[in-house]
Amino acid sequence: MSKQLETELAKEQEHINQRLLHSVEAIPAPTRLKNSILYSIRAGGKRIRPILMKWSCESFHGDTEKVYPAAIALEMIHTYSLIHDDLPAMDDDTYRRGQYTNHKMFDEATAILAGDGLLTNSFQIIANSSIYSDKEKVFLIEKLSAFSGMSGMVGGQTLDMESEKRDITLRELEEIHHMKTGRLLSYAIQAGSFLAGTDDKTLEVIDQFAGYAGLIFQIQDDILDVVGDAKTLGKQIGKDAENDKNTYPKILGLQGAIQQKQQYVEKAKTCLSQIGLQSTKLETFIDYISDRNT
Amino acid sequence: MSKQLETELAKEQEHINQRLLHSVEAIPAPTRLKNSILYSIRAGGKRIRPILMKWSCESFHGDTEKVYPAAIALEMIHTYSLIHDDLPAMDDDTYRRGQYTNHKMFDEATAILAGDGLLTNSFQIIANSSIYSDKEKVFLIEKLSAFSGMSGMVGGQTLDMESEKRDITLRELEEIHHMKTGRLLSYAIQAGSFLAGTDDKTLEVIDQFAGYAGLIFQIQDDILDVVGDAKTLGKQIGKDAENDKNTYPKILGLQGAIQQKQQYVEKAKTCLSQIGLQSTKLETFIDYISDRNT
Repeated sequence: MSKQLETELAKEQEHINQRLLHSVEAIPAPTRLKNSILYSIRAGGKRIRPILMKWSCESFHGDTEKVYPAAIALEMIHTYSLIHDDLPAMDDDTYRRGQYTNHKMFDEATAILAGDGLLTNSFQIIANSSIYSDKEKVFLIEKLSAFSGMSGMVGGQTLDMESEKRDITLRELEEIHHMKTGRLLSYAIQAGSFLAGTDDKTLEVIDQFAGYAGLIFQIQDDILDVVGDAKTLGKQIGKDAENDKNTYPKILGLQGAIQQKQQYVEKAKTCLSQIGLQSTKLETFIDYISDRNT
Repeated sequence: MSKQLETELAKEQEHINQRLLHSVEAIPAPTRLKNSILYSIRAGGKRIRPILMKWSCESFHGDTEKVYPAAIALEMIHTYSLIHDDLPAMDDDTYRRGQYTNHKMFDEATAILAGDGLLTNSFQIIANSSIYSDKEKVFLIEKLSAFSGMSGMVGGQTLDMESEKRDITLRELEEIHHMKTGRLLSYAIQAGSFLAGTDDKTLEVIDQFAGYAGLIFQIQDDILDVVGDAKTLGKQIGKDAENDKNTYPKILGLQGAIQQKQQYVEKAKTCLSQIGLQSTKLETFIDYISDRNT
């Protein structure tokens, strides 16, 4: 990653962290619940989804200020999903981003409720915003609930849990990732382009592009679990193999996974060329998620 | 309860059950997740919140057909809250409505995800509806997320969990119930009257009324745990005392709790008289929740 991109990403992250924290702090809640929620919000993270929404809007020459309420709502949903995924009944994780997971720091009941609270109030952040028209609010909320719900992220997590007990095909693996990770990345891109006033035909290509982005992101996640640096990642590596998890390297081998990723990077860039978006922030994004080491 | 009211409630419940099932069945989801969600939806229940929304709309001479998407979304949220409340980390319940709780029938991970899915897609039910204007959708979604989120139901459940470890005052108890139960009943009443086109001044009184309704509902819940019939209720009685739970009978004694309930019934009816709604379905509702044996 170039020094310039690194600086830019850090700046975007810092900006999102501030606005996210400000929005969540403003929601009244009992002290323990609030502390638990703010603990996970403050734990940081790459903020990939909000940045992607902003860059998508920017690539279509939209007013990027408009993305924030939706981008914050999206990151709240991503944060809740991590809290619930870490629970003992799910992935049973002790650490995330180098610190205790929410239920380890607080307790299971509080972590379940912190997740429920973040999810519920994310929709209020959009509905309450003063910068969207009612029509925009309805679009943003409808897509967010669809993409993060039963046929999106929650559905994908269910398939992921089930698949742990058996070997699956590459096709099944990609369906899981499409639902579990791809849908929220897709939301980021679609919401960003929608707010910039993109036409439906372009949105179709953008949806394809988002699909590849999700897969690239996931393959790199799997690759980093094999060859990444534990300290940089802030979590143990080799956990996937230890748990016999279904991953790209497991199904295709490490070299096969790298090649597959490269193919998707080319396909994603072809999508961008089709709609005249080569050399925009969306291309930068693809290189970033493909080459990242954290 | 009169035979006539019993018949009417059964008819309303049946109608809501059908529409609720139809709406949830139509949401695409992986098989196991869908089965788990439908299991809890089919478990039935009094459907008090949707009925209250309809009766509220009817009392203000609105078109009751308009309440359904919001009423279904509200019942989905109520259903998710029961699934999560029953989890081992929360109330650790084995039975609900005479059958296994969701996590006992499936497993904890599935139950957590079933709750997350119901909550997430409830907002889509409203956003997707063809009978609301965008303005109505935004009102209904904004209030639903506020009332069921961190400063509403989720916040109330957090306070409830915390209060289990100590004795609390009547004031604290009422704050918990106000958030945990009162807010969703209030949503039902407010959404019903909003859809009937009620003015803001009337809404203020209606909000007071809803507050009393929530407390009456809760006091009767507590009373039934002391003097109710386990078979009729479909759950063990005496569980509150066994767990040393903070209840009205614990703080005020059984007679004190009954008197307190009667006072709230009178206050609720006074609210109705103030806005010319005595002898409407909202009055019927108060008598019903106050006298119910299930």
